[in-house]
Amino acid sequence: MLKNKSEQRTSLSELGEFGLIKHLTKHFTINCESTEKGVGDDAAVLEFGNKQILLTTDLLIEGVHFDLSYMPLKHLGYKAVVVNLSDIYAMNGKATQITVSIAISNRFSLEALEALYAGIQLACVNYTVDLVGGDTTSSTTGMMISITAIGEIDKKDVVYRNGAKPNDLLVVTGDLGAAYLGLQVLEREKQVFKANPNSQPDLEHYSYLVERQLKPEARKDVILLLKKLGVKPTSMIDISDGLSSEILHITSQSEVGCNIYEDKIPLDPQVISTCEEFNLDATTIALSGGEDYELLFTISQEDFLKIKGNPNLTVIGHITDKNEGVHLITRGNQKIAIVAQGWNSLSDKDSKTH
Amino acid sequence: MLKNKSEQRTSLSELGEFGLIKHLTKHFTINCESTEKGVGDDAAVLEFGNKQILLTTDLLIEGVHFDLSYMPLKHLGYKAVVVNLSDIYAMNGKATQITVSIAISNRFSLEALEALYAGIQLACVNYTVDLVGGDTTSSTTGMMISITAIGEIDKKDVVYRNGAKPNDLLVVTGDLGAAYLGLQVLEREKQVFKANPNSQPDLEHYSYLVERQLKPEARKDVILLLKKLGVKPTSMIDISDGLSSEILHITSQSEVGCNIYEDKIPLDPQVISTCEEFNLDATTIALSGGEDYELLFTISQEDFLKIKGNPNLTVIGHITDKNEGVHLITRGNQKIAIVAQGWNSLSDKDSKTH
Repeated sequence: MLKNKSEQRTSLSELGEFGLIKHLTKHFTINCESTEKGVGDDAAVLEFGNKQILLTTDLLIEGVHFDLSYMPLKHLGYKAVVVNLSDIYAMNGKATQITVSIAISNRFSLEALEALYAGIQLACVNYTVDLVGGDTTSSTTGMMISITAIGEIDKKDVVYRNGAKPNDLLVVTGDLGAAYLGLQVLEREKQVFKANPNSQPDLEHYSYLVERQLKPEARKDVILLLKKLGVKPTSMIDISDGLSSEILHITSQSEVGCNIYEDKIPLDPQVISTCEEFNLDATTIALSGGEDYELLFTISQEDFLKIKGNPNLTVIGHITDKNEGVHLITRGNQKIAIVAQGWNSLSDKDSKTH
Repeated sequence: MLKNKSEQRTSLSELGEFGLIKHLTKHFTINCESTEKGVGDDAAVLEFGNKQILLTTDLLIEGVHFDLSYMPLKHLGYKAVVVNLSDIYAMNGKATQITVSIAISNRFSLEALEALYAGIQLACVNYTVDLVGGDTTSSTTGMMISITAIGEIDKKDVVYRNGAKPNDLLVVTGDLGAAYLGLQVLEREKQVFKANPNSQPDLEHYSYLVERQLKPEARKDVILLLKKLGVKPTSMIDISDGLSSEILHITSQSEVGCNIYEDKIPLDPQVISTCEEFNLDATTIALSGGEDYELLFTISQEDFLKIKGNPNLTVIGHITDKNEGVHLITRGNQKIAIVAQGWNSLSDKDSKTH
């Protein structure tokens, strides 16, 4: 009740998300024998008996991470699960369970929640994971979804972000940038609809982009494929914030440098054509767009023949010594340093989903 | 964008929290070998190798579950952890890890978050649990905290809600009703402060009540005590919603009845005196107040001598056949049926923390 008006204030956006988490958790120590790995990777690793458990959690807030004016609730439920499972796969694990907690204001009906849960259920079925708990409560405004995903893995199979070695190849799955462009298309349609409520959205030319934004998939298939091919990545991360942010996680945690070749970055034709239409640079979108939920990993050169020619996997660069830095080699053979974009989620709430 | 205006609407408050969860999860099936127990108890049980994992999650929303005008952030952080650990202990487990996700609006400074995390850290230290992950994001309004707690347990030691048998004794730890009265005292002080901002709160006579509301503890000590005494409860639950709600969970899941004796319900002297002052019935507060985070459990009669005389444990009743129903036997020897109070969190947001 008695508030100290002269309290010190530090802006959160100065720190950035990762700086903030690091700052807030730096005094915490690990005390349990069963904690193999805590904060600092896609998921925590817990060791109980002879198996390791993977654990990851995400909090999605209406108006920050999703906009219900173009995100159908079923898709939202599906996506909320998928983005968590993606973190389990990024550890090379098998996703097994989720818990789902939801806060909703009274503007949501039961039918709305049913649609949300139908999407959650579909994701559970498609990825063979079990819903094992959660919490449902009211909110004063809007909807919040908090999902925790659990996975299992044999100790020898865990892939962290910190294992990349010089000369390793950098590989990305699928293609990049489509989800971010899908969001731009949906935002534009929203503005058109606001101006003229009788307008009908014409999304036909952007179907792939919109699907990547509204119904992303996690690359469970790639984890199974790598197992089949006998390839264990030396490091791995999923692409939620954009290629440049993720490569910086791998290089800083592995204490290495990296060269990425612009002409190797996989782009869907719809990404290229829509970038032209929107006057955007496709490489920038691929580097910074985010929400692709593809996997970025490094492999030893001797594994190259095992993955060569697979349409799901593209070698986009290679790992170097740390002192060579992290660079994009452009089509014009220019070397551009890749630097942290910072975290704008706290300072600029409406700019992008996260 | 195109919203169907004629969509069907069902009020959520009709269903109640447990009805809602049941409704929303009824189509989900359990598919993973490692899922021993999903939705329906205090925590999920996962089996990996030779150990079982307990998993529980809670979502706390500003303005619904806590009021920052009288809840210091450090206490909030502490309490948010404790209420989750309480669910692990209610399974007879050992709490080992937590993840913490937080959404905050830009009205919170770094120092505010540090205070919150100081409380989280204190709880981690006091209960020997590790923070192993989480997510931090912005919110459009207020603060939200989502915590997931993990615990471990040997398969043979798990205590569910469904194991109570006729003639078992019903035992409660500590005393009941204080946390709810603490909230009433703080609410009254808030109103006084609103009317006269120069007033100084006088909480001296209510110190126990306020502490139970602002800094509850989970009964890890009781779990260790029961182990030492060689007592394994036949069923157990923690008291978060009030004694009457919890006893109905045990009796319905165990398919039994129960008699609770009013004169046996443990009450702190401050609860009795404050109930007189506020013109409240102490038994009603103990039955419906909630947030005590004590444990309610049943034991076989043959274990009675092991717990007899322990000041932490009070026998308040016994289990009966299902067809005898669930009753409170009053001091005047009247038999009053205990019925579900329903869940008012969605219909009446500001009435109580949950």
